[in-house]
Amino acid sequence: MKNFDINEDPHRRFNPLINEWVLVSPHRAKRPWQGQNETVSTEALPKHDPSCYLCPGNVRANGEINPAYKNSFVFDNDFAALKQDEIIFEEDIKHTFFKAEPEQGISRVVCFSPRHDLTLPEMEVSDIENIVKTWQKEYTELGSIKYINHVQIFENKGSVMGCSNPHPHGQIWAQSSLPTQVEKTHNSLKAYYDKNKRTLLEDYVQAELRVESRIVIENEHFVALVPFWAIWPYETMIVSKRAISKITDFNAEEVTAYAKILKQLTIKYDNLFNTSFPYSSGIHQAPTDGLDHPEWHFHMHFYPPLLRSATVKKFMVGYEMLGESQRDITPEKSAEILRQQEVIHYKSAVK
Amino acid sequence: MKNFDINEDPHRRFNPLINEWVLVSPHRAKRPWQGQNETVSTEALPKHDPSCYLCPGNVRANGEINPAYKNSFVFDNDFAALKQDEIIFEEDIKHTFFKAEPEQGISRVVCFSPRHDLTLPEMEVSDIENIVKTWQKEYTELGSIKYINHVQIFENKGSVMGCSNPHPHGQIWAQSSLPTQVEKTHNSLKAYYDKNKRTLLEDYVQAELRVESRIVIENEHFVALVPFWAIWPYETMIVSKRAISKITDFNAEEVTAYAKILKQLTIKYDNLFNTSFPYSSGIHQAPTDGLDHPEWHFHMHFYPPLLRSATVKKFMVGYEMLGESQRDITPEKSAEILRQQEVIHYKSAVK
Ligand SMILES: O=P(O)(O)O[C@H]1O[C@H](CO)[C@@H](O)[C@H](O)[C@H]1O
Ligand SMILES: O=P(O)(O)O[C@H]1O[C@H](CO)[C@@H](O)[C@H](O)[C@H]1O
Repeated sequence: MKNFDINEDPHRRFNPLINEWVLVSPHRAKRPWQGQNETVSTEALPKHDPSCYLCPGNVRANGEINPAYKNSFVFDNDFAALKQDEIIFEEDIKHTFFKAEPEQGISRVVCFSPRHDLTLPEMEVSDIENIVKTWQKEYTELGSIKYINHVQIFENKGSVMGCSNPHPHGQIWAQSSLPTQVEKTHNSLKAYYDKNKRTLLEDYVQAELRVESRIVIENEHFVALVPFWAIWPYETMIVSKRAISKITDFNAEEVTAYAKILKQLTIKYDNLFNTSFPYSSGIHQAPTDGLDHPEWHFHMHFYPPLLRSATVKKFMVGYEMLGESQRDITPEKSAEILRQQEVIHYKSAVK
Repeated sequence: MKNFDINEDPHRRFNPLINEWVLVSPHRAKRPWQGQNETVSTEALPKHDPSCYLCPGNVRANGEINPAYKNSFVFDNDFAALKQDEIIFEEDIKHTFFKAEPEQGISRVVCFSPRHDLTLPEMEVSDIENIVKTWQKEYTELGSIKYINHVQIFENKGSVMGCSNPHPHGQIWAQSSLPTQVEKTHNSLKAYYDKNKRTLLEDYVQAELRVESRIVIENEHFVALVPFWAIWPYETMIVSKRAISKITDFNAEEVTAYAKILKQLTIKYDNLFNTSFPYSSGIHQAPTDGLDHPEWHFHMHFYPPLLRSATVKKFMVGYEMLGESQRDITPEKSAEILRQQEVIHYKSAVK
């Protein structure tokens, strides 16, 4: 019999945003790895790639020519998962076991820069501010369409995250329904707000700032931290300190502060394994259903797959798919390691 | 305006086992793929590999020597995610945001065969029956330990699923709590049973057998089908026709029928892309909390990652992690493709 030591003993942690648990096995990072290694491209990319369908002036799959854009450039996804067609739906198809509903939506691609070879950590803060403004514009524009109730802004970075083109870009999938993960978060935020008249993340960020151990970066308006309940080895979340429900409510100072923390966090990621760090990231914010959402609190998730090095990732497989998410290193340890990384990009430091 | 066509139009389907939706984009399989390709090992494996820590007679990481086993062989995982230590836990650590609880458990490795080069589809039905009997024995033995309330039997197959050794083996993680995914399923099964006095899967299987379009294989006691709400391109589920709550309730005929359907399903998988088909699979069955579980219905999930070929998988990334699971081919189409595969293994057909 021994006393519980959260840094050493297997335990479960609870995620109040989606009401799910994660299994933490702190000691397990010690096991040797004989499994799959990812390949890392070390090839230097050109500033403009004639064969890239995202570079300015090039032709896309559908024959359209990209403009000679200077900042960011947005277009409708040529292979969209969602379509704008209005569909007539007879409710009687519904069934306990065979329940299906048509879904209307729009998928867009957002090029972050005309430069083929730049990623977020290598861009200027002012360039990132431009991306933020593009996200604001898209959130407003898509959100104002009558049938669009949710706008999901996200980025898949790196081939290991299913990204097929290194040209810096993200996506937006806007649709009628609240997607599953967002609905879970919505319910938690709503229940907390109704009870406390403050947002869950407002109080959570304050609690984390007091404890300090999971904070990676802090500036006047935002905090980047490894959530207490993080699933991925180096998962982080950027949260606004103020209870802001959506990106369009940022003031000018907040736009800059957000761009800065985005740059610093992604620099730390790249520096961790001296590689262009892969991840999927995305913004969770208020639905665009036309209602007020004081319970919503802007946050951005980063889900990076790497565990041990630039080539060894964490596999979320058997137990994780059938049972629950499991991690091999504590969030506190991960936060410490990220905190220790420089905020100067390893590539520019070498030069 | 057009009428909803479930085979063509983007839609969402509801999974009543875990109360979550999946986005289905039938048309999306047509998009070209320029992204990451997996590497496939085509090397023929030896029957016994002196450097394999799972082969009979070899030495493991902890210095122990594997016995000269003839069928299956079970041992405690040398790098277990769970530990048997009893931990004293002061409840007052609990907190809205920092909720953690120690978790007690046992992780085991189950070698399926002394042969290094065989996988399930290549084994004799009688060999697979032996594996089923081993699972029964482990479920009973682990389940009878006082603090073990859930026994998760699973297999990660293939390096793309984080498996680091091709020697055929699975794992068992037994623990105090119901893991997240199992708890969701438990709640759904319980609610359905309380209302209908039949198990959810008993009625679901009957409904699927009437419709036929998602059935892959059927024998007297089991059905292998692509669930209406499947997430992975070639996801399947093996379900018992009878309402059996746990593997130890199988009669002798059911053990054989289960071994047969396991062999046939995995042969079809291998034949699909002429490759040793990767997947994570696992059994969901009654908790081992000492209570009766008439609501539970034995089923086995197969989550295979491949989408287009032996080297192109489906990436569950940005939208899927932040929003909801999304698939590019309908479950009906996948079932049809799997149904068409031979039940003679492509390797033996060539010989
Ligand atoms: O136990 P293994 O085979 O070493 O590890 C594999 O399966 C585990 C259970 O699904 C995962 O947690 C690991 O990420 C994966 O690499
Ligand atoms: O749209 P892309 O970049 O072609 O595709 C990528 O992101 C999508 C959204 O997360 C996923 O559904 C795809 O599996 C992935 O390959």
